[in-house]
Order: sequence, then C-alpha cells, then structure tokens
Amino acid sequence: MAEQGYALGIDLGATTVKAGVVSRAGEIVARAERATEPEKGPAGVAENIALAGRDALRAAGLELSDLDGVGVGTPGICNVDEGVVVSSGNLNFKNVPLAALVRERLGVPVRLENDANCAGLGEQWCGAARGHDDVILYTLGTGVGGALILGGRIYGGATGWAGELGHICVDPDGPECTCGLKGCLEAVASATAMARAAREVVAAGRSPAMARLASEQGGRLDARVVITAARGGDPEAQQILRKAGEYLGLVSAMLVSALNPELIVIGGGASHGGEFLMEPMRQMIARHAMPGPASVVKVVQASLGNDAGLIGAATLVWR
Amino acid sequence: MAEQGYALGIDLGATTVKAGVVSRAGEIVARAERATEPEKGPAGVAENIALAGRDALRAAGLELSDLDGVGVGTPGICNVDEGVVVSSGNLNFKNVPLAALVRERLGVPVRLENDANCAGLGEQWCGAARGHDDVILYTLGTGVGGALILGGRIYGGATGWAGELGHICVDPDGPECTCGLKGCLEAVASATAMARAAREVVAAGRSPAMARLASEQGGRLDARVVITAARGGDPEAQQILRKAGEYLGLVSAMLVSALNPELIVIGGGASHGGEFLMEPMRQMIARHAMPGPASVVKVVQASLGNDAGLIGAATLVWR
Repeated sequence: MAEQGYALGIDLGATTVKAGVVSRAGEIVARAERATEPEKGPAGVAENIALAGRDALRAAGLELSDLDGVGVGTPGICNVDEGVVVSSGNLNFKNVPLAALVRERLGVPVRLENDANCAGLGEQWCGAARGHDDVILYTLGTGVGGALILGGRIYGGATGWAGELGHICVDPDGPECTCGLKGCLEAVASATAMARAAREVVAAGRSPAMARLASEQGGRLDARVVITAARGGDPEAQQILRKAGEYLGLVSAMLVSALNPELIVIGGGASHGGEFLMEPMRQMIARHAMPGPASVVKVVQASLGNDAGLIGAATLVWR
Repeated sequence: MAEQGYALGIDLGATTVKAGVVSRAGEIVARAERATEPEKGPAGVAENIALAGRDALRAAGLELSDLDGVGVGTPGICNVDEGVVVSSGNLNFKNVPLAALVRERLGVPVRLENDANCAGLGEQWCGAARGHDDVILYTLGTGVGGALILGGRIYGGATGWAGELGHICVDPDGPECTCGLKGCLEAVASATAMARAAREVVAAGRSPAMARLASEQGGRLDARVVITAARGGDPEAQQILRKAGEYLGLVSAMLVSALNPELIVIGGGASHGGEFLMEPMRQMIARHAMPGPASVVKVVQASLGNDAGLIGAATLVWR
C-alpha cells in the first residue's frame, strides 16, 4: 500500500484525549480534544479516542483513507507487540486490548506505546534528541516519567517496565512514594515534590516571593511558582530546583555509568526550571559517573513541549 | 561459504592468553595458553594470541581452514564494529586495531568484544542465562565487571562503555575507587573489597576462622578465604559477603527499576559466595526496586565459571 503521509497521533491522559493529525515531516496539521471518561471503561475510552481522531481529521480536511495509521500513547505498562495496556492505574485498565478497540472503530492500523516512551520518540524524531540513538529522557510532571532510547529504539525490558525512571530509588531513607517504596526519584524531583518543598518554605515564612506569586494565582503554590520565583532571583526557590536537580543528577550518574548515553533530555512541565535543574545535574554526573561516559553525555531540555507525546505517538505508525 | 562449525575463542587477560577451539554446540574441543606479554606492545600481544590459537587448533587436530573465525574477548573499551581496542589500562592499549593485527597472522575473520561482555554472551549462549534476552551480568573478581544483554544483544552504549557496572556509584561518601571516584560498586563489592574487609576483621582478632584459613595458604587472605569461612559458619565472613551482596542488591534494584531485566547473573571468582551474596541481593531488590519489575527478575549464579569469556568470545564469530 502506498504511504499516505499522515498519521493520527493520540496522547491519552486520564482527563483528556488529545488527537493530532501529523505529517510525515513531523508537523501537526490539525488537532482536537475530547474528555477521556475512564469511568466509561475501555470501550468508552476507545470511543472517545475515535471521536477525537475523527474531529482532528475533519479539522485537517482529511479522511480516514488518508491515514497510514493511528499511534496511541497511553499511561501505564504496555505490551507493544499485542497492542495491550497491561496495567494503568490512571485509566483503571488491566489487560485492555486498546489497539484492537480503536481499530474496530476507525478501521485503520493502530499501534500503542507508553506515553513517556512516546515523548521520547517525539523528541528523537524532531526535537531535542534528533539524530541521537542512545538517549535517556525524563518527564518531570505530577510524577517523573522516563524513556530509554537504546540503539535507536525504545527499550521496554522483559515485560514493558523499562524506563520507569521515576521509581529508581535515589535515597533509601527518603520520603515515601506513591508506589509504596521510599526515596524514589519521583518522591523528590517531581513537580509535586517541588511544590511540597515550596509549601514548607512558604509556611516557614522564608520566601515572600513565592508567597506573593502563589497568592496571585489564588493560593496555588505549584512548580510553576517555584520556577518563576527562581528566575526572579529567589534563593529558596533556586535551592528547591537545585535539590531536585541534584537528585536527577545522582540517578543520571548511575545511568550514565551503566548505559553510556549520548544525551539526557528533560521534558515535562517542571523542565522549564532549565539551568536551575540542569546545572546541578551536570555537576552530579561529573562527580559520580564514570569519567569516560561522563565526558560524552550532554544534558539538554526537551524542545517539543506538550506536543512530544502526540508527535511521538504518530511515529509509531511509521516504525 | 559453508560453515565449518568451529571457532577460536580467545580470552585475553593482562597475564595470560587463553585460547579454545569451540564447537557450534558450545563445547570446548581443545585449549592452549600463552603469556600475554603486554610489554611487547600490540604486535607482540597479537602474535601471542595467534600462537595460542595455533596451539589450540593443533591440540584439536584441526587447521585454520576448519575455522569460521576468531573471537577475542579483551579487557577495556572496544569499538566492536571496527575491531579496535579503544583503551585498556591493563594492556596499555590505546586505539589498537587488534582484530586486524590478529587477522594478519591467522588469515581468518576476527571479531572482538569486551571481556565481561563475552562472559555475558557465553552465559547466554549455553550457561545460566540460556534462553533469556534481557540479562544483567556482574563479574566479581579483582574488580567488578558487567555486561548488559538487552533485547538479546550486548548493549555497548554510545561509545562502548555501557555495562561497566563496577563504576556505578552506590555510596557517594564511600571508599575511594581505583577509577578516582568514591563509593563505586567495585570499591565495596569486588573480591578485593571483600579481602580488605577480611584483613580488618582478622587484624582486630574477630575471626580466628579466617586467620587460620589464611595462614594455611601462606598468609594470603583473599575472597576465597572469606567464602570458605562463611560456608564453615563464620559470622564475620558471612557478614562481609552479606554487605557486598547488599551493595550489589542496591545497584541491582536501580537497574531493575530502570531496565526491567528477566535475570541477574553473578559470575567471577567471588560469585562462589553464592547464597551468602544472592539472598541479600534479592532482599534489596524487593525493598528498593519498583514492585512490577522486581516481581519478574531472578538472581542466579553463573554456570560456566572461567570458561564463560572464552565460550562467549567464540560466539562473536557466529553472530
């Protein structure tokens, strides 16, 4: 079959389904969104994916026959070969054949992959990791996601869990994580962890800057406040980002010694902390990673923002 | 060209070149050894490899034309595609085209790979990791080597350093390592580290058992003494192995979360510590690795002993 040159990329979140028609050149031609409604179960979610996809196609002035296929980025653990979501707490899915459910509704080939892995693929295809075959990606959001691109491909491990970098233990005596373990990277370096640290600092009256910024947005003290305050010169906010960067750097140092990557990319909302995060990461890598691989690796910020997952999902179709 | 069914496997050490004629079934048909003599430089070492290889062939009653090729396992960092030893402190090699130097002397195809990676390939081909595609191997000797088999293949990373697991930092405030960093796995869990711990215990008069075993072999207090004493019930010796096992387990927990392997194999001389090492490894993995991948992975002892590297080197020819 001749290639049509378009794919539908789906970024499936617990709240929203984002759909985008993506060209072979990596451009998002049109978009649409629908509510995910996980409470309606797998068939309901698949229906909403199909509706969002049709909306995006219509907005692009295209038809289903113009598509080479659909790629879905989903939270949770996937069996990529069989198109099954093995488990996703956010969606309340357990062994859901999501690819088949979407294919039934759209009649085109459907592939799926973990959402953080899709973000990695997006950045590799046309973002910060373009041209690199050995890449570690962190996504810093509510949690810490991750992706390992090894030898040019997403590495999923024996059962699809590989790249779950947020649950690497970085401090055996550290705070409890949502997963039940202690001192996971996610528990100390996610946007959630940054916000928690900021609330403590503000409660202790140590950062008038963050207190003011939070009150300006109705009292919501989130990672965005920390980043804005840090840019404005607030030392407490800078210290929160530095600490998160050091933890990211400690995990990265281990991964650099073990995996010898070319590039470490940080994405997700909190990655806008930029150099406040990346400079301590580089310092920890220089201090704790093996000198050979440490001299090779670069730490950079993701460049596709929130579109990385959607664009990466589309690439599944052409892989 | 029809396959002959034999390969020459070379295990190149700083002191000794071990050569073995290996059959397609993984059997070592004949062996030979020569001194490595790294002081004679790359050409001298290549000559000794060729001599050991010819000796082994003769012992097997075979000729060069019976070989499908030669595989060389070498210490240090390799550019596998180009057959170059990029750097090896033990051999004092820097960018040595070793494959070409050996090919000149034997006239058959030559491939090379890092020695710990060869041990991993050997165990995967016909040892403890047979039938497994996602494997982490540690070799516990003077140092701690490692190999990552990911998706069925050795993963070398961007520049050949991947799998150097001995230099993963496991205790940022720990003892200094030969590499210049602090708290590397090698500095706390190698046979050398075990022997150092044993010397302290014996000097403090806390282990008559190890003192006696050491005196029986002329005062040499090495990891073998620790292992023998532990088997005999000496609590101090058991504690040394437990401590090493816990460090191995802590690094393994991180790697299990990141890479989701099926199997962790421990090889090398000190792996004879067996359950005294592996049980604490499993405990640390259960405590600090993400529950999903932790439930999948098994920790086992290597089964090919000192032959793993030689057998694995031979497999390079048929890959």
